[in-house]
Amino acid sequence: MQNVTKQTEAFRHYMKRMKGFEEAAGLLYWDMRTGAPRKGIEARSEVVGMLSAEVFKMSVAPEMGEFIGYFQQPEIAAELDEVTKRSIAECAKDYERSKRVPAELYEEYVALTSQAETIWEEAKTKADFAMFAPYLERIIDFNKQFIELWGAGAHKYDTLLDMYEPGITVAQLDPLFAGLRERIVPLLREIQQSPHQPDVSLISQSFPKEQQKQFCLYMLQQIGYDFDAGRLDESSHPFATGLNLGDVRITTRYAEDDMSGALFGTIHEFGHALYDQNISSELAGTVLCNGASMGIHESQSRFWENIVARSKPFWRKYFAPLQRHFPQQFGRVQQEDYYRAVNHVQPSLIRTESDELTYNLHVMVRYELEKAIFSNQMKTADLPVAWNDKYKEYLGVVPPHDGVGVLQDVHWAAGLFGYFPSYALGNMYAAQLTNVIRRDIANFEALIEAGEFAPIRQCLHRHIHQHGKMLTPAELLMRVSGQTLRADELVDYLTTKYKEIYKIS
Amino acid sequence: MQNVTKQTEAFRHYMKRMKGFEEAAGLLYWDMRTGAPRKGIEARSEVVGMLSAEVFKMSVAPEMGEFIGYFQQPEIAAELDEVTKRSIAECAKDYERSKRVPAELYEEYVALTSQAETIWEEAKTKADFAMFAPYLERIIDFNKQFIELWGAGAHKYDTLLDMYEPGITVAQLDPLFAGLRERIVPLLREIQQSPHQPDVSLISQSFPKEQQKQFCLYMLQQIGYDFDAGRLDESSHPFATGLNLGDVRITTRYAEDDMSGALFGTIHEFGHALYDQNISSELAGTVLCNGASMGIHESQSRFWENIVARSKPFWRKYFAPLQRHFPQQFGRVQQEDYYRAVNHVQPSLIRTESDELTYNLHVMVRYELEKAIFSNQMKTADLPVAWNDKYKEYLGVVPPHDGVGVLQDVHWAAGLFGYFPSYALGNMYAAQLTNVIRRDIANFEALIEAGEFAPIRQCLHRHIHQHGKMLTPAELLMRVSGQTLRADELVDYLTTKYKEIYKIS
Repeated sequence: MQNVTKQTEAFRHYMKRMKGFEEAAGLLYWDMRTGAPRKGIEARSEVVGMLSAEVFKMSVAPEMGEFIGYFQQPEIAAELDEVTKRSIAECAKDYERSKRVPAELYEEYVALTSQAETIWEEAKTKADFAMFAPYLERIIDFNKQFIELWGAGAHKYDTLLDMYEPGITVAQLDPLFAGLRERIVPLLREIQQSPHQPDVSLISQSFPKEQQKQFCLYMLQQIGYDFDAGRLDESSHPFATGLNLGDVRITTRYAEDDMSGALFGTIHEFGHALYDQNISSELAGTVLCNGASMGIHESQSRFWENIVARSKPFWRKYFAPLQRHFPQQFGRVQQEDYYRAVNHVQPSLIRTESDELTYNLHVMVRYELEKAIFSNQMKTADLPVAWNDKYKEYLGVVPPHDGVGVLQDVHWAAGLFGYFPSYALGNMYAAQLTNVIRRDIANFEALIEAGEFAPIRQCLHRHIHQHGKMLTPAELLMRVSGQTLRADELVDYLTTKYKEIYKIS
Repeated sequence: MQNVTKQTEAFRHYMKRMKGFEEAAGLLYWDMRTGAPRKGIEARSEVVGMLSAEVFKMSVAPEMGEFIGYFQQPEIAAELDEVTKRSIAECAKDYERSKRVPAELYEEYVALTSQAETIWEEAKTKADFAMFAPYLERIIDFNKQFIELWGAGAHKYDTLLDMYEPGITVAQLDPLFAGLRERIVPLLREIQQSPHQPDVSLISQSFPKEQQKQFCLYMLQQIGYDFDAGRLDESSHPFATGLNLGDVRITTRYAEDDMSGALFGTIHEFGHALYDQNISSELAGTVLCNGASMGIHESQSRFWENIVARSKPFWRKYFAPLQRHFPQQFGRVQQEDYYRAVNHVQPSLIRTESDELTYNLHVMVRYELEKAIFSNQMKTADLPVAWNDKYKEYLGVVPPHDGVGVLQDVHWAAGLFGYFPSYALGNMYAAQLTNVIRRDIANFEALIEAGEFAPIRQCLHRHIHQHGKMLTPAELLMRVSGQTLRADELVDYLTTKYKEIYKIS
């Protein structure tokens, strides 16, 4: 028993060290994105690479193997506290996966993706898929090899999905996404045919950056961002980064012709940050001091961005402050018209700019293509045509060129296959969680309308945040809602909301 | 030969890794001082500690011992390039020093100083030397032990001096400082007796922070700070930090009742930063990518702060811009009066707030006391009285309590004995270097008056900056000026400048 205590301490210390390197790399990354001087970037990137490599090395080091071997002995495992036990399971998963990939193969892959990102950037600008294709093909081949090394489930793509959404499978996703699509596509058609279209011109005006920043800071204060444990900065691609429990930063981007991007983007990142700020301090310095999954994390950002901040009660409260901050732009606008404008639905080509409803369809296009690739039903060269066909089928739009089509996202160049579904999963989780919150606190809408977010934050903390990565997404959802993942809640929410906005009976 | 190449590469890689950890720790430190959220600081400090420990461990690791042993073999040393050879010498010095201190002893010392800093802070506030004395006594004892372990020269204090100013000794400093004092003290008396005292009230006005910041940025642009390789931020104690050659940041502090602090402080840190930005890229990633010594580094900051920015030609050029930035405060002030006010001499109690002339006397007080401590001529308990006596003797002022006397600086609590002399050495080096620059570029004053600093920067780059730590301070000075360190240049410069200001014939 004494030895278990000693070994537990040693293992905790080892994890803390890994997390320390990760934290340092995280701050360096944040700094590069928010204000590091240009000439220092190249050398700094090497340091980030070095620190990340250190974390990777520790995750596959013989010491880690020994910890896992020791703690997984049944008589030892029986004595362990839950945090150590779950941490070991998490580390073992990583260790096994990494161990199975020969170091040289992995290094070759890292070099390839780093090169591919540069090529992709140029290919996107030139709308030249052929330029990127050979790189993409090799990245796909590497991932196919990895799947063989890691071992595949019922569907080979499952192995990739599991990296971002532990436990999720094609067998689960296929009916979920089909159900979602079957109800979203007709709804979208009804919306498009509605004679009651919002006037979106009212949100395209001139918004000085400093004014936008002040309003974003005001909103963050209102919804309860802890500025003693975070800060708001500017970067070209907004993100949230949890460096430690007391330092979770967010960034945003200000477009001077439309403030919606910065506002809803900031609130989106706030949702991520609130999660990371509220993980139980018991998990600090462990590999469990993280979100349960990409999808659960996204559910938190989507909840605040869409379900809260794009809701009617929210603007009943905050339209007056918005007018005060932007008297020239919104002084003569009606609250209802603003609410409808920021909820405008429009099938478009670019995922990152799409609305709450069609967003899910963008994700499904990628899901279908990735699934086809990893079941060997599609070749790299066929991707552009397949992409365009799917956009036509799901969204009714066709990219004029690949730069705004198959080449639009960096993910594939970075080797991130299996990642996209998390975005749509986030929306589904968010809808299910909202129903839990409504059950817990009867006056959900009234609280939003009163600008009283503390009970909502507490509810999220209790159900989701505090647990960090102690539970899998499925365990978490079952515990919170008593249900498995479903598309119905999301569809019901979208249907009610948009029928009202578009006056569809 | 092939083996030498291979080993050289391995050693360079090893050094680069050490520098990488140092760079990461440096950025984390900068961030903590400039804007990290309060609640994240405690965990962040641990990460900084971890990264610094990593650098220390690498500097005393068996691998380092092997590199040193290998490269110091005469037949191998003969084949080495200069950078590797000098790097090995630098690493060997550290290695030997660290190796001689038992790890437990060193850890005990680190814990002591960290505790002592906290106690010192309270003791200073309470002006209670007795509270701090037992800690100071132990820190001194530790340092005496270190001197024995490291080996002492003619004077035990030499061992400590060498850590900050390689090669400097009491035997050199005693006559230098005596010579300086002998001429400065009478000059100071003449200044004090002069009927022509500057009107300092004109610099004590109200200066909004944002306006000060704009003027500091303007001045940095004028004197040639490379903002693509640095940035200006705010911190409670100003500093410059060279993270890598392309990222050398400076900070300043804005006092709203006097803008001189922020202005001259910013230019001071610029001097440090310009040095670090201009070390030869050949030295990047080596232990030589650093200043030659504390004193040489300080010479660069003092050169820009005092010799350039507190000069008459400088204000002939920049008084008009100053008036434009601060029309209400300086619109009716005469250029000459402003120049005299910012060069006002006043013996005072606090080193960090002292003027260009008396600054050296503050340093000498500490030098005399430290020397006496390490030659066992003074006990810890005697320091407050000795301090006050020396202030009376050198500066003619006596602290009303120890909080503004012997307890004013953190250095001793941090174990930094031997560090203070660098500040005065910086002034001497700066004066000697200025004479070299005057020889190199005939129109030194005219260039300043024209705001053309490029030739001056190039001169510094050629003589000082590019060499990094390739040369010792003495080598560098001899190479640049053909002289050893002297006090005369500094005294001549101060005498000429202040006789003119105070109209002393």
